Amino acid sequence: MVIALLSDFGLEDHYVGSMKGVLARLAPAAKVVDLGHQIAPYDRIQGGLLLYQTYPYFPPKTIFVAVVDPGVGSARKGILVETDDYFFLGPDNGLLSMALGEQKIRRIFDLSHEKYFLDSVSPTFHGRDIFAPVAAHLALGVAPESFGEELTDYQRLPAFVPSFNTKEITGQILAFDRFGNAISNLSRKFFNRHYQKPTLDLKVGGRNFECLHTHYAAVPSGEGLALFGGGDLLEIAVHQGSAEKIFSLKRGDTLRLAL
Amino acid sequence: MVIALLSDFGLEDHYVGSMKGVLARLAPAAKVVDLGHQIAPYDRIQGGLLLYQTYPYFPPKTIFVAVVDPGVGSARKGILVETDDYFFLGPDNGLLSMALGEQKIRRIFDLSHEKYFLDSVSPTFHGRDIFAPVAAHLALGVAPESFGEELTDYQRLPAFVPSFNTKEITGQILAFDRFGNAISNLSRKFFNRHYQKPTLDLKVGGRNFECLHTHYAAVPSGEGLALFGGGDLLEIAVHQGSAEKIFSLKRGDTLRLAL
Amino acid sequence: MVIALLSDFGLEDHYVGSMKGVLARLAPAAKVVDLGHQIAPYDRIQGGLLLYQTYPYFPPKTIFVAVVDPGVGSARKGILVETDDYFFLGPDNGLLSMALGEQKIRRIFDLSHEKYFLDSVSPTFHGRDIFAPVAAHLALGVAPESFGEELTDYQRLPAFVPSFNTKEITGQILAFDRFGNAISNLSRKFFNRHYQKPTLDLKVGGRNFECLHTHYAAVPSGEGLALFGGGDLLEIAVHQGSAEKIFSLKRGDTLRLAL
Repeated sequence: MVIALLSDFGLEDHYVGSMKGVLARLAPAAKVVDLGHQIAPYDRIQGGLLLYQTYPYFPPKTIFVAVVDPGVGSARKGILVETDDYFFLGPDNGLLSMALGEQKIRRIFDLSHEKYFLDSVSPTFHGRDIFAPVAAHLALGVAPESFGEELTDYQRLPAFVPSFNTKEITGQILAFDRFGNAISNLSRKFFNRHYQKPTLDLKVGGRNFECLHTHYAAVPSGEGLALFGGGDLLEIAVHQGSAEKIFSLKRGDTLRLAL
Repeated sequence: MVIALLSDFGLEDHYVGSMKGVLARLAPAAKVVDLGHQIAPYDRIQGGLLLYQTYPYFPPKTIFVAVVDPGVGSARKGILVETDDYFFLGPDNGLLSMALGEQKIRRIFDLSHEKYFLDSVSPTFHGRDIFAPVAAHLALGVAPESFGEELTDYQRLPAFVPSFNTKEITGQILAFDRFGNAISNLSRKFFNRHYQKPTLDLKVGGRNFECLHTHYAAVPSGEGLALFGGGDLLEIAVHQGSAEKIFSLKRGDTLRLAL
Repeated sequence: MVIALLSDFGLEDHYVGSMKGVLARLAPAAKVVDLGHQIAPYDRIQGGLLLYQTYPYFPPKTIFVAVVDPGVGSARKGILVETDDYFFLGPDNGLLSMALGEQKIRRIFDLSHEKYFLDSVSPTFHGRDIFAPVAAHLALGVAPESFGEELTDYQRLPAFVPSFNTKEITGQILAFDRFGNAISNLSRKFFNRHYQKPTLDLKVGGRNFECLHTHYAAVPSGEGLALFGGGDLLEIAVHQGSAEKIFSLKRGDTLRLAL
């Protein structure tokens, strides 16, 4: 059984090591894989995007534990979402919603049965004291309904959803990767369904992009381009450069596709 | 058998990869887990703190390999400490002492038997050439006394120990986590034993904290608070902000608890 | 079977997590180990150096997957190199050449048989869609010749090779590690073969080094020294300081050994 971890805990502190200790102790046979822990502190958009881009490559029944949790210790719920393919564990604050938007959801549970938590639960660190032990017990075969009451829905983050009317599709930049590529919320699936023109008519940050390229090296070094990147999301990039810096792009900047 | 690794080697260089190669070659069945490698170079306090905060969550008999080793190649010893619960390997420079202060120690050994080192030992990299192969052999079942002569004691770092008199408890800030929370050397156990007042009377960096909170979200965004954090150490924090920056705190700053 | 990963993907984005998902799905029994993913973007020298410094410590038949790939999507080939000891997978852009220079090469293959790729290959992310699934199939026992046509040679990076004439050996600084140590392309093996003087006569950045030390602590704190570091490459270092900053060294700076 694979347990995949994502957080904003960084690698400098005790957070990730403690969670791995709990998993090694409670579910020694599970394979623990890091999706990434360098999400900017409290950044549910960057975290949700990373989960969205990675989960489909994992084997069926993988247990995803995603913790970007500014409200830890407050009234926000911790949830377990069972889909046709996977299990998702995390705070119910929208973090999981970009990935869940693509999944067929079976059941959602409120993580409330303390029997599966560590004996002492720190109000500041549910990753170690609630999510890790619940993931371990799930990997050991405990049934999803054992962890708490069933819920009818989960929280969504609006930023993950592009909008459109008869004149244009409006997306936004969600994040920049380490190469400075600007990743938008416009998926290839959404694009193919709503955009019919033979050429691109895209405006971002005062610039026009009239061609959809397939790879970075399709343009000369230092030139900008639009393409669907690794996560099948529309990206603004610069070949061997940073689109973020060269085009002065910011998170939340609007992409407009004229229809 | 779990081998847990902690170092100041970072993830940019060959250090951690080489150690993992040695472990994969010599102890292929061991489960290797990272506690963290982003300790600031040579920083035994940050390293010892991370070990202290993480080790209790690991399964019994875990082998901890901690390498923050400014004196590598000099006369400092490498040691193996066997406690009732775990094995600890590292340089004898105080790095292990915060964790060992809580453990019941059985035996301490000087790592001197070259039979268990790599054939060629670099004077600059004992992590790969001594500590990793010794950990691998320990995981394979070699007895602790095989690795060298028994010692009677180990080095301690004074910063890890708070002091007190009849008027006050004096602690210090050991480190800041990535969220800017200031972690002190005052453990909940120490606090409960020595502090009896019903409310908090804490001075840090010219500020007073009169309430012990239980979680970050207990105060409004941007406000400061004192609480016991994930590692059960007293922290100064700012909800959704950096206590380090907002309160201009520095490592070594004194915490005074009036008795 | 061990699969060891090296890239410039960083740990902030989806790249590494996606590759690990593919490996967990296709080769669940393989042990996946990170050599490092913090190579500076597109930096084949730093990447090739890290591979060179780490691969010899791994068990025989380890599959190394190295992806620093500025030309992804262009005409550059992806290759599999089978040596007497290991398998190396990566773009044919010189990245593998420092390690391969020490290995006895059996066969080289062009990764062209799409049967072993993911169903859909992104032109921007061969790490996930080509190199990871090929590594997984290789770990599962698929024969090297199954992945494509045999090639007669591979690309080399000139920076990895020092030069010499009757008067001097000329090396260069390849990279700095996180401690600020300057790592050169002069290996101990090369040095021993070509340098016969009893004392050192080395010029770097306007400074002379007349003694070859064995460990950092051999000189007082803050002083410079020359030594063979962990990867058996000649280093310029400062004990408990950064040679890069204190000596104002830059990548590509020349090391001259008078013969």
